[in-house]
Amino acid sequence: MRLYNMHNSGNCYKVRLTAHQLGVPLDITHVDVLAGETRQAEFIARNPNGRVPLLELDDGRFLAESNAIIFHLAEGSPLIPQDAYERAQMLQWMFFEQYSHEPYIAVARFWFSIKPGGRAETTEAQRELWRTRGTQALEVMERHLTETPYFVGGRYSLADIALYAYTHAAHEGDFDLPPYPAIRAWLARVESEPRHIPMEAG
Amino acid sequence: MRLYNMHNSGNCYKVRLTAHQLGVPLDITHVDVLAGETRQAEFIARNPNGRVPLLELDDGRFLAESNAIIFHLAEGSPLIPQDAYERAQMLQWMFFEQYSHEPYIAVARFWFSIKPGGRAETTEAQRELWRTRGTQALEVMERHLTETPYFVGGRYSLADIALYAYTHAAHEGDFDLPPYPAIRAWLARVESEPRHIPMEAG
Repeated sequence: MRLYNMHNSGNCYKVRLTAHQLGVPLDITHVDVLAGETRQAEFIARNPNGRVPLLELDDGRFLAESNAIIFHLAEGSPLIPQDAYERAQMLQWMFFEQYSHEPYIAVARFWFSIKPGGRAETTEAQRELWRTRGTQALEVMERHLTETPYFVGGRYSLADIALYAYTHAAHEGDFDLPPYPAIRAWLARVESEPRHIPMEAG
Repeated sequence: MRLYNMHNSGNCYKVRLTAHQLGVPLDITHVDVLAGETRQAEFIARNPNGRVPLLELDDGRFLAESNAIIFHLAEGSPLIPQDAYERAQMLQWMFFEQYSHEPYIAVARFWFSIKPGGRAETTEAQRELWRTRGTQALEVMERHLTETPYFVGGRYSLADIALYAYTHAAHEGDFDLPPYPAIRAWLARVESEPRHIPMEAG
């Protein structure tokens, strides 16, 4: 399988981390998002929504959306709970990640630390929104992680991978993690999982 | 099971529609989001992220996030494809809905048509963002629906329910659907499915 990948995208990192932990080899095609490659006709033909990560299966079919890709890679593995309620809880946290976490914590990081000169292009209204909503997301995570070592069922799952990707890099979006001891302990727990790889390995 | 519900929320409507089509009875508790009930301690204890819909199972456990709830309700039913790739495609479109569609099309509708006096509280920058990104989402849908009658595998699934909820009400967010004939034909197709109920039935 081939991953269309941006090396410092947390969404792409989720896919590389999941595949590595499952022992699934991936061919990598680097996509220069900042140069507009995801908006070119050749890429749009593969993913009409114009985003990475994008997975190309061995038979040439495509799959987009980071959390759908890792769900597909991990079907039948211990990274997805067998219990139906726990599986739904895992999806709950993955939708939380895409709706209440990534649009603030990852987007702030993009403008402050990924796009050259990006910070100067942001407005105070944007920065305030990212700070407020991103902090809310971290508080929801902190509250949950004071009660449980991993997000679902007391065991490492795709919910942890999805939320780890941008939380461990939150400082690059100006979020300080010292006020969140349960999150910091959980980050260390995720990093101690077998076959963990850092984002930089991509 | 009990649904904590706001009657004119598309995310809540997804759950009522899915449950009705599956023949699953739901007790309904109305939550007045505009009056701040989802931010009160009693509700936060049930869902720390402070949002509806929220499902309470018969054993008292809770599940949040509309698309995780409908996934749970529909497990083992024809609303979820049995083929692994098609199941992942269904999730792809459900994540697309929450990341690239709902934050623009549903949020514009909330401020323009749900919150009394809401339009006057919006800024031109917000309205421009909603219009641009919401239009992009509709264009991605239109392109896909010119090739297939439903979002995944040529058959009605949770992807259609998730995307129908706010698309059929897009005009309330100032989006015109006449330029999208494939979307309009798909809306009619969804409405002709057995046991379809309108949002107003909630």
